[in-house]
Amino acid sequence: MLTQEQITAAQTRANDYLQRAGIVLTPQEVGKIEVADLGLSELEKTGLCLVIYINTDRYCAKELILFPRQTCPEHRHPPIGNDPGKEETFRCRQGTVYLYVEGEPAANLSAQPPAGSENYYTVRHEIELHPGEQYTIPPNTLHWFQAGNEGAIVSEFSSTSRDEFDIFTDPRIRRATVVE
Amino acid sequence: MLTQEQITAAQTRANDYLQRAGIVLTPQEVGKIEVADLGLSELEKTGLCLVIYINTDRYCAKELILFPRQTCPEHRHPPIGNDPGKEETFRCRQGTVYLYVEGEPAANLSAQPPAGSENYYTVRHEIELHPGEQYTIPPNTLHWFQAGNEGAIVSEFSSTSRDEFDIFTDPRIRRATVVE
Ligand SMILES: [Zn+2]
Ligand SMILES: [Zn+2]
Repeated sequence: MLTQEQITAAQTRANDYLQRAGIVLTPQEVGKIEVADLGLSELEKTGLCLVIYINTDRYCAKELILFPRQTCPEHRHPPIGNDPGKEETFRCRQGTVYLYVEGEPAANLSAQPPAGSENYYTVRHEIELHPGEQYTIPPNTLHWFQAGNEGAIVSEFSSTSRDEFDIFTDPRIRRATVVE
Repeated sequence: MLTQEQITAAQTRANDYLQRAGIVLTPQEVGKIEVADLGLSELEKTGLCLVIYINTDRYCAKELILFPRQTCPEHRHPPIGNDPGKEETFRCRQGTVYLYVEGEPAANLSAQPPAGSENYYTVRHEIELHPGEQYTIPPNTLHWFQAGNEGAIVSEFSSTSRDEFDIFTDPRIRRATVVE
């Protein structure tokens, strides 16, 4: 749950990040920046901001903005009908992002899961992305990510996005933001 | 036809545009910037540079760099098998781009087709894009575009890209660049 003030403040802050990176939004787009706290009401630790440029029945493009050490919790994009599940490419544009996916677990993690939610972060294969670096996540594959100390801007290129069907490891999570 | 020197010079110039806009490429990506003169050997007038971030069998994302008044010639993305043809979204990131598609022709064009090739520019419905503005082109729809006086950077988000099947109005055009 977020208040309208928290949402507006996060939209402004996210737009500042984008402007500093030279990424221009129209005023209407700034007002439509999605602020997601995943229902955990700890936006500073868990959540992200999203700009959805386009989402057709064939492809999707977004800009993700993460504040310092903010974490997008573990989830996967399951098959839906004859859609095998969203395939997505994350390209770091600014800052550093630590991405974790299924596979060989890292010895020690560069990013710690949010305190109190550790049990819901089960995949540990680490991919560190700096500006210009990218990684493609296959459909139906568990992943989570966290920004470094300066936050991060990540472009997401993908097949059609149906966020409402995302499956989160943490059962407390509700994908749609509730405004107090 | 382009010489290797022309290609390298265009890659460097395109990367300068990107850096000034805050868009970071890895050194490998700079070396792989595609320089397209469409076989007309008049790169300053007709052609563009492309960075292909990702092109899977489901989606594609590119950055297009246009030098001042450079024109990408009229073409369409035809159906291929059960693919209805590439659907693409152009989002202007920097500068100005004049996009022309099928539809109500503009009274007077903000962009003039390259001298000597006017006959091969048949669609005249004008869409002017400034940073933050975008337009989605349906499959199999004729379109061409030209940068304003300061050049332009345009993000292209689309379904799978199969450039080799593009159909250009100008019969002289050869999509694959030939290096002298
Ligand atoms: Zn995801
Ligand atoms: Zn096109």
